[in-house]
Amino acid sequence: MSTHTYILVNTNCKLCSLVAGLSAAKLLKTSGLNPLVLEARDRVGGRTFTVRNKETKWVDLGGAYIGPTQNRILRLAKEYGVKTYKVNEEENLVHFTNGKSYPFKGSFPPMWNPFVIMDFNNLFRTLDEMGREIPREAPWRAPHAKEWDEMSMQMLFDKIIWTRYAVRIFAKLFVNVNVTSEPHEVSALWFLWYIKQCGGTMRIFSTTNGGQERKFAGGSSQISECMAKELDERVKLESPVCRIDQSGDMVVVDTVDKHTYMARYVIVATPPALNLKMHFTPELPPLRNQLISRVPMGSVIKCMVYYKENFWRKKGFCGTMVIEEEGAPIGLTLDDTKPDGSVPAIMGFILARKCRELCTLTKEERLRRICDIYSRVLGTEEALHPVHYEEKNWCEEEYSGGCYTAYFPPGILTQFGRVLREPVGRLYFAGTETATEWSGYMEGAVQAGERAAREVMSALGKIHPTQIWQTEPESQDVIALPFESSFWERNLPSVGGFLKFLSVSSVLSTAAAAGLLAYRKGLLPRS
Amino acid sequence: MSTHTYILVNTNCKLCSLVAGLSAAKLLKTSGLNPLVLEARDRVGGRTFTVRNKETKWVDLGGAYIGPTQNRILRLAKEYGVKTYKVNEEENLVHFTNGKSYPFKGSFPPMWNPFVIMDFNNLFRTLDEMGREIPREAPWRAPHAKEWDEMSMQMLFDKIIWTRYAVRIFAKLFVNVNVTSEPHEVSALWFLWYIKQCGGTMRIFSTTNGGQERKFAGGSSQISECMAKELDERVKLESPVCRIDQSGDMVVVDTVDKHTYMARYVIVATPPALNLKMHFTPELPPLRNQLISRVPMGSVIKCMVYYKENFWRKKGFCGTMVIEEEGAPIGLTLDDTKPDGSVPAIMGFILARKCRELCTLTKEERLRRICDIYSRVLGTEEALHPVHYEEKNWCEEEYSGGCYTAYFPPGILTQFGRVLREPVGRLYFAGTETATEWSGYMEGAVQAGERAAREVMSALGKIHPTQIWQTEPESQDVIALPFESSFWERNLPSVGGFLKFLSVSSVLSTAAAAGLLAYRKGLLPRS
Repeated sequence: MSTHTYILVNTNCKLCSLVAGLSAAKLLKTSGLNPLVLEARDRVGGRTFTVRNKETKWVDLGGAYIGPTQNRILRLAKEYGVKTYKVNEEENLVHFTNGKSYPFKGSFPPMWNPFVIMDFNNLFRTLDEMGREIPREAPWRAPHAKEWDEMSMQMLFDKIIWTRYAVRIFAKLFVNVNVTSEPHEVSALWFLWYIKQCGGTMRIFSTTNGGQERKFAGGSSQISECMAKELDERVKLESPVCRIDQSGDMVVVDTVDKHTYMARYVIVATPPALNLKMHFTPELPPLRNQLISRVPMGSVIKCMVYYKENFWRKKGFCGTMVIEEEGAPIGLTLDDTKPDGSVPAIMGFILARKCRELCTLTKEERLRRICDIYSRVLGTEEALHPVHYEEKNWCEEEYSGGCYTAYFPPGILTQFGRVLREPVGRLYFAGTETATEWSGYMEGAVQAGERAAREVMSALGKIHPTQIWQTEPESQDVIALPFESSFWERNLPSVGGFLKFLSVSSVLSTAAAAGLLAYRKGLLPRS
Repeated sequence: MSTHTYILVNTNCKLCSLVAGLSAAKLLKTSGLNPLVLEARDRVGGRTFTVRNKETKWVDLGGAYIGPTQNRILRLAKEYGVKTYKVNEEENLVHFTNGKSYPFKGSFPPMWNPFVIMDFNNLFRTLDEMGREIPREAPWRAPHAKEWDEMSMQMLFDKIIWTRYAVRIFAKLFVNVNVTSEPHEVSALWFLWYIKQCGGTMRIFSTTNGGQERKFAGGSSQISECMAKELDERVKLESPVCRIDQSGDMVVVDTVDKHTYMARYVIVATPPALNLKMHFTPELPPLRNQLISRVPMGSVIKCMVYYKENFWRKKGFCGTMVIEEEGAPIGLTLDDTKPDGSVPAIMGFILARKCRELCTLTKEERLRRICDIYSRVLGTEEALHPVHYEEKNWCEEEYSGGCYTAYFPPGILTQFGRVLREPVGRLYFAGTETATEWSGYMEGAVQAGERAAREVMSALGKIHPTQIWQTEPESQDVIALPFESSFWERNLPSVGGFLKFLSVSSVLSTAAAAGLLAYRKGLLPRS
């Protein structure tokens, strides 16, 4: 039995959670305290997972992308000398829809039908406008919190979207890609909050100037590995916590392998649902006890296909594919070739419903289907001949429960959200799910871990409570540019608004209504 | 370290789960096998919880009600000589709505406005009709499974219900009472299945001839206590399981108090979410690993208010109150006076959203608010003077997670339902959530436990696989009567259908439409 001032409990291995646990421990140690990290798995990194082998050199099978405004994780990376590089977006992106490929530039695929343009523009403008009403630190206090929380994103889309196909299909993919779940599964309030706290629809979805701008050269687990090295024997691997007893003077923590630790405070840095892996004395308060079975993790398989040559760039494609086809396993790809041009590869996500359907196939069968769709989207047989394949199904990880992050089904955020990071006695809660900036990302994990560490320091009287929450200065290497919206993006009417406008002009309106009807009935082609 | 042929793992203490575990063990022992039950708590009974004290004699603070068609639990009760008695429904029930009390007889409160009658009749007829399409053993195979699963019950109500207030308010209460959750939280497919597998809207909601017809004299925990007595030292209390390892020849099971057991097969008889309390080697398959964080337990506080005299019967009320008022803590009450007329009491449920809001009050404050509404509904100050109070907040129970049962949020049943009771290696799954008749009730727990026991017997070659699922002969003491629907209930049109009919008769239709509009706008009174 060991005695420590602090124990950081990580029974899960998610990217962010362990980043959170290690970040907390690092800050506590720097502050002269005596933390210990209990990690469930045989590795650090959590939902980040860098694998090294001769075929790939290194590959991030978990969280990998970082971008501007993610200043905390960038600060840590810089401290450890881990460099970033830009994800390739030089050539054309490609939008695959209705069985055809449309090359494009920019963050979102362009639309051509004027009604679709209005509808698409209005949708994303509305999501951002609604987000502005939602406090990032307390979404349950938004003026329309109850109404929006009782709706799923599917219901909100049904309200906002006017046209029949194009915008709806992309909206679904937008939810799938960002939160690895389905529009009918998630609360509208929660999803709007999630987009908002990442900086809005443009910031979260963009590669250049957005959340996918960069990767860490050598892999994202390096950050955790460097922190673990610094903490040295304060990190205990293969130590899943199964019991936390705070009925005595010290908090007593048992692991599955029957070791017992004692501490004055405990930071639980797992996704909320994995609190259930522990047996608590005394029992958790009722709202927390119920919260932790109400916030499931998303579903995703990350798939890396390796080729002998980077044939897509030669054809003028950067490697980004936005794929709208129900039968296609992959929804979004990005180039994953090394920054020096070696090891050509395409990263693709099997998302949400598709993940649940395809997880029962063999790895070989998944690869075959993936190459098949890449070949169709990129218009070349070359995609059918991979030289290597790596994949990671996060749904099968007991100590993550899924990836990237937890989602809130309808009704949960307003009724249970307020206890998400509320301390329980001497237990404090970290994990990226408890963050208020880039929650769901490595950045959120660092914010959460450092905040929880400062909560403990405040409880010890080492800092003032007002110092718990701290802002982070902007990285000097990765600068955030504003997203300038055009006059038209700001002022283009919605389809409904346009029709109202037309109704004052009867000649035009008859023609337009007929056209709209024709479009809705599918009589007009997409572009 | 002990070695047993079978281990029945109950890390939870829910009414049904432990009923399931004990039922399984009982059947295995009777079949000449050697089961062991590991129970997390210091008592058996799970989500049944009979408390004995001088003020109440005995009181069921957990699962209590049984009725016709629940033949398995009635068989067990009879075997142990536990008698049933009828819940009092002699005098009038009372429906409290718009701040007024309306006495009534029958299962559902009557409505008076003709549009409301049509709408109400059409709603419940439609729920039962939809239920008929859903296979009780595989709701994910219903013809409209995907469409209905992507909808919440709220969305389905919005589609079916035409009038503005009365029917909507009662429909919400109907969900609250039956599954202790909110219409916007639950999948329509799941809720329709739930009602169907209890025998339909009348069977589930009725006292006489329905799910609340009877109670066990002396309390429902007696059944578990008798089974535990029969199993004797094969039941280990205070033995929460934290690890199940089936990587070797025998399955190895560790408890939190650091005992280790070995067995050839394990039946996990907890609500699905409480599988998370255990650490598995090897990890669970991906769909089961994600299922168990997607099926939360409902929210309920069961409240028993004791009075010196049974003043409500004297006033012509049987004790059943259907209370529609947002500010009222309680949604439904039943008389809980002992069968001999002693210990007058009213049982009331604080349900779903109200449970989450009121769980932070003190017990005294909850009692005060409960007496206040009873006094208003029953129209007498006598309700303000209780002599004793008992309550049980199931949300705070670590080894239940909530009550009465697990619910499926939108999208989960079709994607994950099929693994609900699919064995994982040598692990089999019981618990009332895995039942196909009265799932969520004691009856479902017995069905599930006995089915899981027969799965193990089949794996051992002791019975044929076709013998795993068995029907139960009807109880000779508690007979199910059919619910006769009247000509009008079967043939009354919906409001929409009525309007269509009217549209062929233009004179009438103008008047009716004006009337309907007036009703929708709230210009007409309720009755």
